Amino acid sequence: ADPRIEVVTTASMIPQEVGPIYIGSFAMLNCHNIGIMDIRTPADARQPEYLARLLAADVVMFSGGNQSRLREMFGETDFLDTLTRRYFAEPNFVIAGTSAGAMAMSHHMIRGGSVPDALLKGAVKMGIGFGLLPTALIDSHFVKRGRFGRLIEAVALYPKLIGIGLGEDTGVLITDGHLVETIGSNLVIILDGHDIAHNNTAAAKKGTTLSIENFKMHVLAKGNVYCITERKFYVSKEAVANATC
Amino acid sequence: ADPRIEVVTTASMIPQEVGPIYIGSFAMLNCHNIGIMDIRTPADARQPEYLARLLAADVVMFSGGNQSRLREMFGETDFLDTLTRRYFAEPNFVIAGTSAGAMAMSHHMIRGGSVPDALLKGAVKMGIGFGLLPTALIDSHFVKRGRFGRLIEAVALYPKLIGIGLGEDTGVLITDGHLVETIGSNLVIILDGHDIAHNNTAAAKKGTTLSIENFKMHVLAKGNVYCITERKFYVSKEAVANATC
Repeated sequence: ADPRIEVVTTASMIPQEVGPIYIGSFAMLNCHNIGIMDIRTPADARQPEYLARLLAADVVMFSGGNQSRLREMFGETDFLDTLTRRYFAEPNFVIAGTSAGAMAMSHHMIRGGSVPDALLKGAVKMGIGFGLLPTALIDSHFVKRGRFGRLIEAVALYPKLIGIGLGEDTGVLITDGHLVETIGSNLVIILDGHDIAHNNTAAAKKGTTLSIENFKMHVLAKGNVYCITERKFYVSKEAVANATC
Repeated sequence: ADPRIEVVTTASMIPQEVGPIYIGSFAMLNCHNIGIMDIRTPADARQPEYLARLLAADVVMFSGGNQSRLREMFGETDFLDTLTRRYFAEPNFVIAGTSAGAMAMSHHMIRGGSVPDALLKGAVKMGIGFGLLPTALIDSHFVKRGRFGRLIEAVALYPKLIGIGLGEDTGVLITDGHLVETIGSNLVIILDGHDIAHNNTAAAKKGTTLSIENFKMHVLAKGNVYCITERKFYVSKEAVANATC
C-alpha cells in the first residue's frame, strides 16, 4: 500500500512553495498519499485534526527553514508528545527531516552561528529541539557552508553528545536510536568529544578563542555506519552485523 | 642592534605594493634594517647578490601570494640550499612566512583546493614546498575560508604528517623543529592522522566521497603548544618544560 506521508512545513517561511515541491518529489518515488501540515502557530499545532493525522501517518517529514520555529510551535503540545511516543514505541514509524528539519531532531540543538567568528566562544547559538535523538547534535549544509567551527564549539559545550555534520545531498538513516547509516552522494562528519582533555569552552569569555584538546573525527561516505553507543565507525551495515553494536 | 630582515616577495603578484607594507609594518616594531628581495625568475634567484644578502640576514620573511611560485623560483638553487642549511644549523636564524609564505615551509605542500568539492577525492591539489618542516602540512586562512575539508584530505593522503591550520591574524612559532607555539588573536587547528584506521583516500576515484576513520583534532588558542614528535597538546610553554618533549 501507498504509505501515508505527512510533510510538516512549519520551519519554512515559504510553505506555499515548499509543499508542492515535496508532493512532486514523493510522486517521483511513486508515493502519492501525501498530506501537508502547514502549522504556523502553537494554537494550530494543538488542533485535534493534526493530531488525528499524525496518528494515522506512516512517515512524518519536517521541511527545512528555521529550526527554532519547530520547538516554538510544537513545544508542550500533544502533537510532540505523540510524535515522541510513536517514535520510541513503533519500530516501523519513520520521522524524517531535511536541513532545519534534521537539526531539530536532537535535544540540544544548533540554532545558528557565524562562520567568520567560528571557534570564538559564543559564535554558536544553542537552543532546544524535539529531543528524539538525545545522544547527538546535528548540523546541515556542513561542508559547503564551512560549518566545522560551529559543530566543534557545540560538541565542546556538550562533549557527551556526538556531533553529526551532514553534507549536501546526504542524509543519515538512524535505526535503533544509535546506528547512523550514511545515504546520498556526499558525506557525513562525525565529531566525538568523549576523550576531550583540556577544554576552556565553558569558562571562556564571549568572543575569546577556544582551546580544546582531543576531538575524534570520522569522515563517512555512503554506506558507512557509525554506532553512537559504541562510538565506533563501521565500513558497512554488513560489518555491523558481526559486531556487538 | 637592529636585526637584518630580508622580505622575499616572490610569492606575490603585487610585490611593488607588498614590499612597502612590510617596511612600514616592521617600522612599527622599531625594525628599520629591512631589505626587499623581489625575486621574479629562477635566474634571479641564482644571483650572487641575493645569496650574499641571505648569508647576512638574521631573519628571512616570505610574503603571501601563490605558494607554488616559491618552489618554482627557488628549487635547485644555492639560495634554497643555504636557507635550509642555516635553518637547521643556526639556532638564532629565523625563517618566517605568512599565508602562502607559511604554507611553503613544508615538504608536501597544499597548492590549492575547492571548498565546494571538499572531501571528494582530488579536491585538494598537492605540490612540493621548501621542506624546512618535513613533519607537517600547513594551511592558512583556515577558519574564515572554511578549509577544514582540504586539510582533512591532505592529512588522509599523508597520515604521517601533522596538519596545521592557521586562523586569521594567528601564527605559530616553531622551535627545535617540533614545538609549535600559537601566537595571535585567533586559533590554530591541529589534525593528526596517525591513528587513522579505515582510509579510502589513496584508492578512491577522483570526485568520489572520502571515507576515513579516526582523526585526532585539537583547537589551539594563543599560548597553547603542540609537540609534533610526541603528538601532544600542552596548555602552555611552561607545561612543556615539565614534559619529555
